Amino acid sequence: MDLVDGVRKGSVRALAKLITLVENEQPGAIEAMESIYPHTGNAYIIGITGPPGAGKSTLTDKITKELRRENYTVGIIAIDPTSPFTGGALLGDRVRMQGVSNDEDVFIRSMATRGTLGGLSRATADTSKILDAYGKDYVIIETVGVGQDEVDIIRTADVSILVVIPGSGDDIQAIKAGIMEIGDIFVVNKSDREGADRLVTEIKMMLDLSSAPRDWTPAIVKTIATEDKGVETLVEKIKEHREYLMESGTLALRRKERIRSEITKIVENEIFRYFDGLIAENRDIYDQRLEDIVGKKEDPYLLAKQAVEIIAKKISKKAGEYKGRG
Amino acid sequence: MDLVDGVRKGSVRALAKLITLVENEQPGAIEAMESIYPHTGNAYIIGITGPPGAGKSTLTDKITKELRRENYTVGIIAIDPTSPFTGGALLGDRVRMQGVSNDEDVFIRSMATRGTLGGLSRATADTSKILDAYGKDYVIIETVGVGQDEVDIIRTADVSILVVIPGSGDDIQAIKAGIMEIGDIFVVNKSDREGADRLVTEIKMMLDLSSAPRDWTPAIVKTIATEDKGVETLVEKIKEHREYLMESGTLALRRKERIRSEITKIVENEIFRYFDGLIAENRDIYDQRLEDIVGKKEDPYLLAKQAVEIIAKKISKKAGEYKGRG
Repeated sequence: MDLVDGVRKGSVRALAKLITLVENEQPGAIEAMESIYPHTGNAYIIGITGPPGAGKSTLTDKITKELRRENYTVGIIAIDPTSPFTGGALLGDRVRMQGVSNDEDVFIRSMATRGTLGGLSRATADTSKILDAYGKDYVIIETVGVGQDEVDIIRTADVSILVVIPGSGDDIQAIKAGIMEIGDIFVVNKSDREGADRLVTEIKMMLDLSSAPRDWTPAIVKTIATEDKGVETLVEKIKEHREYLMESGTLALRRKERIRSEITKIVENEIFRYFDGLIAENRDIYDQRLEDIVGKKEDPYLLAKQAVEIIAKKISKKAGEYKGRG
Repeated sequence: MDLVDGVRKGSVRALAKLITLVENEQPGAIEAMESIYPHTGNAYIIGITGPPGAGKSTLTDKITKELRRENYTVGIIAIDPTSPFTGGALLGDRVRMQGVSNDEDVFIRSMATRGTLGGLSRATADTSKILDAYGKDYVIIETVGVGQDEVDIIRTADVSILVVIPGSGDDIQAIKAGIMEIGDIFVVNKSDREGADRLVTEIKMMLDLSSAPRDWTPAIVKTIATEDKGVETLVEKIKEHREYLMESGTLALRRKERIRSEITKIVENEIFRYFDGLIAENRDIYDQRLEDIVGKKEDPYLLAKQAVEIIAKKISKKAGEYKGRG
């Protein structure tokens, strides 16, 4: 496990290579993650999400600078809202982050939306662990949007920060949309815009109305990230929340939840490797049967059932082989 | 299969009941979907997405009215951007849709984000098929956001409509965010706002720059949904696109792609039923092992591997039993 050793010894080259290996699910990826795992648990994971255009990248940049000022090392995982079709990245965002990208104690990794189900959250979780084992004090995961995948990613962070902006005229709806309950800290960015105070009031009201039981009252912080305003307060709130998590024992509970969701992802991933393999081995037959299904000569449920049974047999057979050998 | 018969005979009661049965994965759900499947393929599926506050619900309402004016029947699946935690629904949206909800030839179904992976897209796909078999001419699937789940849902529609609004100051980023490539028709809603024409130009430029190969040049339609402006043109564009799909043979290809993605969802769902069952049967042991993993006494990859093997054995055993009986 040369790469894992390299990562543990602080090699940036090994770090980048190991992330690529794991992201692409190359041979040895799971074994590498098994060796990485015992060395994790020291980094603090910050999740940042919000609608497109809320200024998340700039905010990530500024939070990073603030943490660096205090001599903490930082790893950033930026989940690019790329098309599943083009695979391209939003260059603009990364350019804006140039402020920190020349600092060698900050490691930035962009991840594109993956084709496979749950692939993105798994790759993000693994990368986060690798950065943790590498020795980063903080890992910031920045993602976009209100989809289930994004919620899944952010809710497994130690602290979830939801960034919103005033002035879209549909503020409440934007906040309501799926992510209200996961915010530990709400950031009203671009708070020099008209309507910032109203937005703060609206968030407070929604938090009051919310039925979710909580010991921690979510903080609301106004920022103007581009002018570095409010960022220090935000970082203070992150630390306050961290203290609350530690003292209340919630941190351990949260990390247990994260593990629970990760295991589901690993199981899913493992099974879909078999499914993809099965399709690859029988591409022509599969294609013909798909056409039969479109033509109503067959139904998709039967095909799926047969696929599940074949996958199960393959897995059982392989497990048996291992046992036979050991 | 009483419910399926009821649906085929036009009973709204049976329709609502069958959707609930399938949505909740109650016993008999897969068998019901197998009986439904041969009766599908007649409805035309319209997918509508866009950021929160873009006016998608109002637009869905107006498109429905326009289709009803032409005597088409319509089914609406509104995917509510509800929190995975509260399970609540955005009542406001449904209230705004009251214009059509008293029309008995319009069936509206709200779906909440599901806890299980891929559960939402599967439930949406199944409901869409049930509405199709029931005899609806059009099924409109309305969803929010730019997440992978939403993209998955919308890209399996026959036509994908992306709704954007001018004036957020971050228009381009909002469009870029993950969904640019899936739009067959772009709607610039609230087009009486400043910046509407600029937004149209920006979309055109992005489409020109896009490397995606296409025979269909995506249409861009300006609307003011609240005032019913542009909706007729939009419905015309939907039909124009439909003609293109039919004549070019792309419709069959698209539906094959939809089946392909549905099979993946069915396989996933079937396997996770076993996984959930396995955890339910061994809740205490599972919980203890999760704690050991958090405490680094064990790693999650081993547990996942064992779970996969047990699931595989269970599936193989059950498949064997069936064969033994048959």
